[in-house]
Amino acid sequence: MVPRYSRPAMSAIWEPEARFRIWFEIEAHATEKLGELGVVPKSAAKALWDWWATDPVIDVPAIDAIEAVTKHDVIAFLTWVAEQVGDEARFMHQGMTSSDVLDTTLAVQLARASDILLEDLDLLLAAIKRRAEEHKYTPTIGRSHGIHAEPVTFGLKLAQAYAEFDRCKARLLAARAEIATCAISGAVGTFANIDPSVEAHVADKLGLEIEPISTQVIPRDRHAMFFSVLAVIAGSIERVAVEVRHLQRTEVLEAEEYFSPGQKGSSAMPHKRNPILTENLTGQARMIRGYAMPALENVALWHERDISHSSVERFIGPDATITLDFALGRLTGVIDKLLIYPERMQKNLDRMGGLVHSQRVLLALTQNGVSREDAYRLVQRNAMKVWESDGQMSLLELLKNDPEVTAALTNQQLEERFDLEYHFKQVDTIFKRVFN
Amino acid sequence: MVPRYSRPAMSAIWEPEARFRIWFEIEAHATEKLGELGVVPKSAAKALWDWWATDPVIDVPAIDAIEAVTKHDVIAFLTWVAEQVGDEARFMHQGMTSSDVLDTTLAVQLARASDILLEDLDLLLAAIKRRAEEHKYTPTIGRSHGIHAEPVTFGLKLAQAYAEFDRCKARLLAARAEIATCAISGAVGTFANIDPSVEAHVADKLGLEIEPISTQVIPRDRHAMFFSVLAVIAGSIERVAVEVRHLQRTEVLEAEEYFSPGQKGSSAMPHKRNPILTENLTGQARMIRGYAMPALENVALWHERDISHSSVERFIGPDATITLDFALGRLTGVIDKLLIYPERMQKNLDRMGGLVHSQRVLLALTQNGVSREDAYRLVQRNAMKVWESDGQMSLLELLKNDPEVTAALTNQQLEERFDLEYHFKQVDTIFKRVFN
Amino acid sequence: MVPRYSRPAMSAIWEPEARFRIWFEIEAHATEKLGELGVVPKSAAKALWDWWATDPVIDVPAIDAIEAVTKHDVIAFLTWVAEQVGDEARFMHQGMTSSDVLDTTLAVQLARASDILLEDLDLLLAAIKRRAEEHKYTPTIGRSHGIHAEPVTFGLKLAQAYAEFDRCKARLLAARAEIATCAISGAVGTFANIDPSVEAHVADKLGLEIEPISTQVIPRDRHAMFFSVLAVIAGSIERVAVEVRHLQRTEVLEAEEYFSPGQKGSSAMPHKRNPILTENLTGQARMIRGYAMPALENVALWHERDISHSSVERFIGPDATITLDFALGRLTGVIDKLLIYPERMQKNLDRMGGLVHSQRVLLALTQNGVSREDAYRLVQRNAMKVWESDGQMSLLELLKNDPEVTAALTNQQLEERFDLEYHFKQVDTIFKRVFN
Amino acid sequence: MVPRYSRPAMSAIWEPEARFRIWFEIEAHATEKLGELGVVPKSAAKALWDWWATDPVIDVPAIDAIEAVTKHDVIAFLTWVAEQVGDEARFMHQGMTSSDVLDTTLAVQLARASDILLEDLDLLLAAIKRRAEEHKYTPTIGRSHGIHAEPVTFGLKLAQAYAEFDRCKARLLAARAEIATCAISGAVGTFANIDPSVEAHVADKLGLEIEPISTQVIPRDRHAMFFSVLAVIAGSIERVAVEVRHLQRTEVLEAEEYFSPGQKGSSAMPHKRNPILTENLTGQARMIRGYAMPALENVALWHERDISHSSVERFIGPDATITLDFALGRLTGVIDKLLIYPERMQKNLDRMGGLVHSQRVLLALTQNGVSREDAYRLVQRNAMKVWESDGQMSLLELLKNDPEVTAALTNQQLEERFDLEYHFKQVDTIFKRVFN
Repeated sequence: MVPRYSRPAMSAIWEPEARFRIWFEIEAHATEKLGELGVVPKSAAKALWDWWATDPVIDVPAIDAIEAVTKHDVIAFLTWVAEQVGDEARFMHQGMTSSDVLDTTLAVQLARASDILLEDLDLLLAAIKRRAEEHKYTPTIGRSHGIHAEPVTFGLKLAQAYAEFDRCKARLLAARAEIATCAISGAVGTFANIDPSVEAHVADKLGLEIEPISTQVIPRDRHAMFFSVLAVIAGSIERVAVEVRHLQRTEVLEAEEYFSPGQKGSSAMPHKRNPILTENLTGQARMIRGYAMPALENVALWHERDISHSSVERFIGPDATITLDFALGRLTGVIDKLLIYPERMQKNLDRMGGLVHSQRVLLALTQNGVSREDAYRLVQRNAMKVWESDGQMSLLELLKNDPEVTAALTNQQLEERFDLEYHFKQVDTIFKRVFN
Repeated sequence: MVPRYSRPAMSAIWEPEARFRIWFEIEAHATEKLGELGVVPKSAAKALWDWWATDPVIDVPAIDAIEAVTKHDVIAFLTWVAEQVGDEARFMHQGMTSSDVLDTTLAVQLARASDILLEDLDLLLAAIKRRAEEHKYTPTIGRSHGIHAEPVTFGLKLAQAYAEFDRCKARLLAARAEIATCAISGAVGTFANIDPSVEAHVADKLGLEIEPISTQVIPRDRHAMFFSVLAVIAGSIERVAVEVRHLQRTEVLEAEEYFSPGQKGSSAMPHKRNPILTENLTGQARMIRGYAMPALENVALWHERDISHSSVERFIGPDATITLDFALGRLTGVIDKLLIYPERMQKNLDRMGGLVHSQRVLLALTQNGVSREDAYRLVQRNAMKVWESDGQMSLLELLKNDPEVTAALTNQQLEERFDLEYHFKQVDTIFKRVFN
Repeated sequence: MVPRYSRPAMSAIWEPEARFRIWFEIEAHATEKLGELGVVPKSAAKALWDWWATDPVIDVPAIDAIEAVTKHDVIAFLTWVAEQVGDEARFMHQGMTSSDVLDTTLAVQLARASDILLEDLDLLLAAIKRRAEEHKYTPTIGRSHGIHAEPVTFGLKLAQAYAEFDRCKARLLAARAEIATCAISGAVGTFANIDPSVEAHVADKLGLEIEPISTQVIPRDRHAMFFSVLAVIAGSIERVAVEVRHLQRTEVLEAEEYFSPGQKGSSAMPHKRNPILTENLTGQARMIRGYAMPALENVALWHERDISHSSVERFIGPDATITLDFALGRLTGVIDKLLIYPERMQKNLDRMGGLVHSQRVLLALTQNGVSREDAYRLVQRNAMKVWESDGQMSLLELLKNDPEVTAALTNQQLEERFDLEYHFKQVDTIFKRVFN
Repeated sequence: MVPRYSRPAMSAIWEPEARFRIWFEIEAHATEKLGELGVVPKSAAKALWDWWATDPVIDVPAIDAIEAVTKHDVIAFLTWVAEQVGDEARFMHQGMTSSDVLDTTLAVQLARASDILLEDLDLLLAAIKRRAEEHKYTPTIGRSHGIHAEPVTFGLKLAQAYAEFDRCKARLLAARAEIATCAISGAVGTFANIDPSVEAHVADKLGLEIEPISTQVIPRDRHAMFFSVLAVIAGSIERVAVEVRHLQRTEVLEAEEYFSPGQKGSSAMPHKRNPILTENLTGQARMIRGYAMPALENVALWHERDISHSSVERFIGPDATITLDFALGRLTGVIDKLLIYPERMQKNLDRMGGLVHSQRVLLALTQNGVSREDAYRLVQRNAMKVWESDGQMSLLELLKNDPEVTAALTNQQLEERFDLEYHFKQVDTIFKRVFN
């Protein structure tokens, strides 16, 4: 976790105090149910909740000090709570094992993190949609291989991003369901010393599903899936970030990250305005992607469990969610305030002397009886001249002067093929597909 | 792709001929619709399908030879088809771009691969279920950290695997839906030169969904998700493989891979019987996991598309699906024929002098009024003696001779805590959760 | 391994026959030494070498057929050789274990692969050097963040690539030394049944170092290091590939991949000339990078060895070396034939109205007594005007008309700051650092 | 960075104050040389060093506050220093660019981190060597595939670890040299506004090499190599960690992590003693391995540089080095205090009824004229009986009663093949190879 790439709401989920609070709630809910079942006195849960109602400060250093002796975090916590609550606390954790608490806590944390990320995605989607509608019909050149291809609209570029993040939202919802399970099944998952109804009770109280079968731990294929989904979302962030970085290149300059008054692009070169936010997002995407690998390696724990996953999760639990939250927020800001330059887009569109219309001429020739191979040859030989003139020559004019072309197409037929609007007749269809 | 880790049905999907067959079908279906729309003569599609009805051999070397000149695979294919079909073929590919064909073909291939993998998972699940029911109540020691914990049944181990692969099946179904889309939207996805109804028609004929918005290519977040799911499944394979490898260790030997007559474990040591199949699966899991990384890097293509994803997919398309298919088949065989040794499981269960029952004694002490801390101390001091005797001492006997213990628990109460069956009372509950 | 990304010399290393030939040589050399030591009859090695001198065909299918029964590749091979050579062959493999053969063979293969890759790097370095000298003083704009910064020369760009691949060569030499070791130490590496002098003899004959301590297998940290180095080289390939892709963008077009007669850029758009080779290299780099991960996971084998590394190496041994060989060859071709457009570079240099000289003005102001903060402000306010005019305004003219600037600098002093040659005075110094 | 996996010396390198201190030194050394060259007044450096001699507190929040406005960290720092030092400070950073400072600082930090890691490795090597010598001749079973193979000594296991970490040390030394370079070459690396002698001066003062060619930034192939080496070291840590975890398994129990008084293995099961330190190391190894991927992706920056590497390095710079430092320290502690149980090793050695000697019998049969195939069959059929008896039968006794065996070998000859010492005759040879 890098402080400058953190936001408070997400970070708070991973604070020790937040973790201890969830631990307490799990223990207290479980004790409550154990009381109902007659396994422990009903007074035990009451004592716990009464203390909790006093809104006690969680003394993290005190708990850490106990752990330094016991070398066991849950026992340290239980010991500290017992010191606060008194004798009734001895009924806590009856028949449970540490992982019942730890894994269910991680489920709560990841579910809460997911909720923030889902909100982030909603805000991002809203920003993209707003800008997409604004530029629904702003013409710009579409590029494949970095080379001018045919016209698109800037709105279409954003609609693509919208559709992609909309899929990411669906994936994240599925990923949230993957990890939002509660396991209170005892030392090796047999419920030998704890009734399954305790698990059901705690799950219900915490808004989780029960884990159908656990083995002291919740199986880590769930978490592998979860962090893989975060990696995919990071990939989609990177895609948009790379797009903005390309658009801001000096020679392209069709869009720019907002540049605030007082900002300095370079300590040495006062003229610089750099796409630093999206470059930064590119690097963050690499990190979030990298966190999927250890999560995938965590699946194959030994027998009913080993604890090798734990140190990994101490890193990637916070790091992946905090960084993704930050990145989504940053990307939303970039999109929201993106400086968009339609005139420059038009200028770039025009710079290739009409080459972007080459396919339409090809099709027209074919439809008027020229073989596909001949048509390709005719268009290509004129296109290459325009290409080599760096757009100073006009494809339309060259075609009008090529007798093999004019044998098949009149000047008017040729001119009709150079109509920009022609390309946008399905934009509304696509928008309906994406935004409805 | 490593031939020895390949099976024919999956490999066939990735053969050049299979790819060309899908290409043809896409082109012919599209031409058909274009004929209906009046864009090309209806006779064009007829000519294509008539030729197709002759069940023509796809002359892969001839197509490759054309590509060697054009350096463009789809144009090479179209040229070859035109040579076969004649003049009417010039209407093929009208208003389409290569990626319309290539990406939709990849969708068909990945969907077919998914179907095989789903069948593989069904067979694996069936094998696991059969063995789980067979050993539903076979006692065995549960281990955390590789250390004896408390009793489980061998059926529970398998039920856990069942639940995990059942989740994998759901994930794979979702992943299949991710990539089973058809895009026929032209050079930059605007449908400028092709009506969206062509896309809908081809999608329908091929059993795909339409891609809501494409940019010459189908967006690669879909494929990143797909290959990530394969990586997660590989992790689950590895988990079971590691379990078997552990169980087959000389000192444990609770189960063994089937060892066929004539098989040799070692060229030097005739006594060896090694878990080579599951070790092999462990390595394959590493590969499939590794293939997710380039798929994730493929998402951020430049602008409307670049072609950097293509070389990656030429590797991982076949390699990840073929290897996973092989691995699932191999794992199914391992489970199906696994030699399971209940006597040895019982022997291992007994080897720790009853330590596995320590928790129950702890709980009993607590319930009879001993503080949790005292109870832990009392049990631990006797347990450590058993531990240090390597199971030669009996925990029950030591407890019966510890006055602080007997002050709280009678001999009979102690003995009741050493009942193995006690641990299995919820096995049926868990089985119902998993297999229903 | 993808056939279209393979070259014959590298692929041949990984053919079954090549592997069996190395196996034979190891066994025969070892038998020779065992004969000298009196462990086996001297006639045994003679019989083997006599047969070898007949240049026998290695009957791969026959060996595979035996393996199908024994399920052990080395035993199958030994059995087949015994069938050819006769009774004397029974002395082969005396005191050895399969891994002695397999791991030493992998060492030979990887060392041979390294030799090819080292030649590839030499050819690449030569191509880069030739083009670097050709364009040592060709001015072009340096870009940071994709934004114009200050002038560089095209030769400097290539010199940077040269220095990077020169480092890669040193790394590959070190990596070759890592894996070029011979282990003939028996079943668990104790030399219990084979004298260490056999290992030394075979190592000497095969041009390898002895492995100081092996445990049946050569430790896999060596291979992890080797494949990590290939991944780093792939990263450097990607770097140059991305540079070319950027330079070929329509708006930049300072260089282009060679476009052969007959080549088609797009099936739909005849005007396209796409950087497909470098896009292709980008994807290949992702793959080679991805192969490092399973190699790193291979290190932690169980105890004296498990065989999980083996399936991984069957993939990445060929796939990583073959693909890297292909990629280095392809990159060499790209550099060798790269179309370089100095006029366009100059045009791009000029397009920002002199902004690229802003730093020099800043420094001049500071040296004439203006505070750094004020100087930055003065330059930035004029630079922003040029920026917003898209290079239509001239920074020099604006500065000449800014009284706060002219208070500190005369027109002549200002003009001197806009001298392009000024930037290249250390080019020769840098070239000497890189190429000497 | 996870606080509980951090040690102070390494963490201190990455504190903001430490970074600012290096920044200052670079700027002051550069100003000094610029003074010598007459570019700035000599008084400038003097003013800087005079202030520095007062041992000023670096006011991190004040610098951060300035950055919040300028959005540029180096400018913020320079501004703050200027506030402290006064007018002379305006000569700082003359002709330099931020990356000159940032990248050279990273070089200093990574070099310092390397120095700590090299010390860590020395301590680890010393601990391993001590225990290796202690157990040079402690017999234990060697295992391949987790199955008993032939005898080794515990010292040999440790010698293997020693050799591996010795290689890691050599790799780390090489990796340190990779990243310990200084670049002060200006905005695009041309030295246009700063003489190369400044770079040489600063490099010399900071103990770095000059970077032969930089492009504003130090090329990131260096860092990719560096972090890859850390990943390889992590793999070697994991290897030893996995070994210890295996040895501590209940059924094996040949060694144990030290278990301190007061420690609790399980909140539920008082009898547990778990290998939590090495499990923890396994997870940390996964993380350090994972950090290599983004470092490898960082190589292909755009043109002369983009800043996408920066956010990655803010994570992995501290996280990889801090975690590796912690892990090396933890592993050293584990080795140092490892509880080693020779009696249990002997017991395990004996448990297979002499099967571990099967190869020697095989060789003896072969040498007495039995064909290899027959010898294998004879040994295997007796070995399988022992195997199936779970070591209750004795291989020696069975062989003595097999007429086909006794036709070739006398009882005495058979007995000689069951001598444990036989296996250790080369231990000293191997130790000399490793420790000399």
